[in-house]
Amino acid sequence: MKSAQEQFAIIKKGASQIISEEGLMEKLLESVKEERPLIIKFGLDPSAPDIHLGHTVALRKIRQMQDLGHKAVIIIGDFTGQIGDPTGRSKGRKALSKEQVRENAATYMEQIFKVIDPSKTEVRFNSEWLEKLNFEDVIRLASTTTVARMLERDDFKKRYQENVPIGLHEFFYPLMQAYDSVQIHADIELGGTEQTFNVLMGRALQKAKGEKEQTAIFMPLLEGLDGVEKMSKSLGNYICVDEEPEVMFKKVMEVPDSLIIRYFTLVTDVSMDAIKEMEKEMEEGRNPREVKLMLAKEITRIYHGEEAMLRAEKYFETVFREGRIPDQMPEIMLSTKEDTLISIIPRLMELKLIPSGSEFRRLISQGGVTLNEEKVFDINRMFVEKENVLKIGKKKFVRLLRL
Amino acid sequence: MKSAQEQFAIIKKGASQIISEEGLMEKLLESVKEERPLIIKFGLDPSAPDIHLGHTVALRKIRQMQDLGHKAVIIIGDFTGQIGDPTGRSKGRKALSKEQVRENAATYMEQIFKVIDPSKTEVRFNSEWLEKLNFEDVIRLASTTTVARMLERDDFKKRYQENVPIGLHEFFYPLMQAYDSVQIHADIELGGTEQTFNVLMGRALQKAKGEKEQTAIFMPLLEGLDGVEKMSKSLGNYICVDEEPEVMFKKVMEVPDSLIIRYFTLVTDVSMDAIKEMEKEMEEGRNPREVKLMLAKEITRIYHGEEAMLRAEKYFETVFREGRIPDQMPEIMLSTKEDTLISIIPRLMELKLIPSGSEFRRLISQGGVTLNEEKVFDINRMFVEKENVLKIGKKKFVRLLRL
Repeated sequence: MKSAQEQFAIIKKGASQIISEEGLMEKLLESVKEERPLIIKFGLDPSAPDIHLGHTVALRKIRQMQDLGHKAVIIIGDFTGQIGDPTGRSKGRKALSKEQVRENAATYMEQIFKVIDPSKTEVRFNSEWLEKLNFEDVIRLASTTTVARMLERDDFKKRYQENVPIGLHEFFYPLMQAYDSVQIHADIELGGTEQTFNVLMGRALQKAKGEKEQTAIFMPLLEGLDGVEKMSKSLGNYICVDEEPEVMFKKVMEVPDSLIIRYFTLVTDVSMDAIKEMEKEMEEGRNPREVKLMLAKEITRIYHGEEAMLRAEKYFETVFREGRIPDQMPEIMLSTKEDTLISIIPRLMELKLIPSGSEFRRLISQGGVTLNEEKVFDINRMFVEKENVLKIGKKKFVRLLRL
Repeated sequence: MKSAQEQFAIIKKGASQIISEEGLMEKLLESVKEERPLIIKFGLDPSAPDIHLGHTVALRKIRQMQDLGHKAVIIIGDFTGQIGDPTGRSKGRKALSKEQVRENAATYMEQIFKVIDPSKTEVRFNSEWLEKLNFEDVIRLASTTTVARMLERDDFKKRYQENVPIGLHEFFYPLMQAYDSVQIHADIELGGTEQTFNVLMGRALQKAKGEKEQTAIFMPLLEGLDGVEKMSKSLGNYICVDEEPEVMFKKVMEVPDSLIIRYFTLVTDVSMDAIKEMEKEMEEGRNPREVKLMLAKEITRIYHGEEAMLRAEKYFETVFREGRIPDQMPEIMLSTKEDTLISIIPRLMELKLIPSGSEFRRLISQGGVTLNEEKVFDINRMFVEKENVLKIGKKKFVRLLRL
C-alpha cells in the first residue's frame, strides 16, 4: 500500500477542487493505519444509459483510487427514475419500470467496467433505502436543511429570481443524493463541478446525523466536440464509450485542436511527461492532426483494443484521407431500368448525400461525381450494371443496386 | 330542510370571507337536491388541548350548519404532534405520544361538544392517512405546488426576507392540511382568517387530484381580553370554555367595553336584533357595565348552565362589586409572632396585592386597609388572632394564618 502522502498526490492530480484537502489527508492516514479501504461514492442517473467520455473523467479517477486499494460504490439513482416527472410536464422524464432501470443499469455497468475495476466495485440501487422512508422520515430529513439553503443552488436561485416555477419536490433530489451518502457511509464522493451543491449537501447531512463528513472531489467537466459546451447526450457533442470503433475514431478526429492536450490529460492513461512533450512539439510547429491521430488511436484502443483500433484507423485513412472506396456505404435499391441520376435525386437528398438537385448538377458538370470509378457528366445517365458505386464529391459514397 | 338560499344566508352571517360564494351556493343546491349533508372540515392542533372562546367563533358556525343538517369532521392533527419539532430547537413543540394525543383529543372533544352537535360529528386523526405515505407519495404531493407559492404565505415570506431560517419540513405543514381535505372529501373548510393560505392550499390540492374544490369559510379572529391581539393561549388573553364559572364570569367582565357587541355577535346565541338593541341603548347612554354583565351571564350560562352562572354572578357581585368578604382568597402563613404589616410587604407584593410598600403606606394612612373588618392605621401593627383577614382597597383580600 502506498503512503497517505503518495496517495494524496495521485488523487489530487487533475481534480478541480477537493473539500477538504485536510479531511482527505486525515482519511488517507486512517485508511493506511487501519488497512481499511475508503468508500468512494459515484452516482449515476438511470434514465440515460450511455456512458460518454465526459463520465470517464471521474471514472478514471475512481480507477486510480481503486488501484490504490480503495472501494467504489456506484449508486444507481433508480428511485427518482421510477417516479419520473410527477408533474407530467417533462416528456423526457417518463417513469421507468424496475425492469427498465435494471436493464439500463446492466448496460451502464458493462460500459463502466471498461474503466473501473469490477473486483473493487459495489453497485447499489438507491430505491433500496429511499423506498422505505415514510412521511415522518421525510419530514425529519427535510428538517436538516432550510429553504434559503436550497435556494442557494445556482439553478434554483436563477429560476426563483426569474419566476420560473420550482416544483417543491425538486428540493428533494439533492436531499436524496445526500441521504445515499449517509446510507453507504461514503468517505469520498466524486462528481463533476456541476454537482457541487448536491455533493456538499451530503456532507451537511452526514454531519447532522453525527457521522464523518465525506470528502468531496470535483473533477473538471470535459468539453464536447464543439469545444465549448460540456459533453452531453442532449447536446449531441459526445463520444460514447461503446461507440463503434470507426465512429469513435472519426469523432475524436473532430475534437478541436485546442482541446487535444485536455483530452489526453483527462481521458487517457498517457503519462503527463509524454503529454507535455506533445504539447511542446505542437508549439514548435508539429501538425496537430498528427497528434490528434495519436489521441484517436489511444482512445479507441482503450475501449476496443488494438485490433479494432487498427481497423478503425485504416477505415478513417481510406475514407477521409485517401478517398478510396470503403467497404461499407449506404445503399439505394433501383426500382426500374429507367432510373437515371436525375431520378434518384430525392433519395440522395434523403440520405443527405447532396443538399439539392442544383448542387448535384453543378458537381456533375465540374467532374465531381464518378460512377463505378468513371466520371459522369450526363445527369440522364442510366445504370447498366446490377451493382454500381456512385461517388459524390471527395468523401461520399452510395451503392446503387438493381434486383 | 331549509332551501339553499336560506341556508346560504345563515352560513354567510358573520363570516369574514367565503371562497367562493358561487361554489358554496352550488354545493348547497346540490345538497338540497340530493338530500346529501355537506362535509364540513375543521382542524385542531393536539398540542394545546384548551379550547377558548376564540375557537368557538368557528365552532358556533359549524353548529349552525349542523342544525341545517350538515356533518362536521373534526381533524385532530396528531401526525405532526407525534413528530414534534424535528430540529429540537423549539422546546414548546415536544413530540407527543399516541396516548398523550388521544388524551388531549378527549379533553378537546369534551369541550367542543359544549358547542357542536356530537350526533353530527365525526372525529378523525390525520395520522390515519399521513402515516401511510411513503417517500414516493410525498414527492408526488410536493410536486403539486411550487417553492414560490409556498413563499407567498405571509409568515414564510417575512422570514425569508428577514433571513430567519425556514426549515424545509415546515413547507409540508400546509400540504398535510390540504391532504386532509382530499382524504375526507371536504365540501367546506372552516378556519380563522390566519388560516387563509392553508385552507386555500386544500382547494388547490383537491383540484390537482381531480376533485371538487372545498369552499373556504373564514371566520373573524376574536380579540382577547387586551382588546388588541387575537385571543390565544400563549398571549394569556384568553377565556377557556372549561374555565371555572367564577373565573369565566370575572374574565368576561374584563373585556373592554368596545368589544361587548363583537363578543355578543361572535360567541353567543343572542339574536342580532337583540344585539342591535343593546348597541343602540349604549349609544343612548346606558352604562356598558350593565350590558357586559349580561354578556358574562350569557357566556357563563352556555358553558356551565343556569345554576353555576348564578353562583358565579353572586361571587362576582360580592367580591368585586360590594366588597364583602368572599370565601376564597389567597393565604399568607405568618412565621413568627413578630410579624407586622410592614414585615409582610414583600409577600403582599409577591401576590400582587400591592404595587409597592409606599403605596401600601399611603392606603393605610387613608383608611383603605382593614384587618378583621376594622380599619388599621399603624403599619407596625402585629397580628393577634390565629386567622386574620386583611382587606386592601376595595377588592383585594388575603388571609393571614399563624400555626
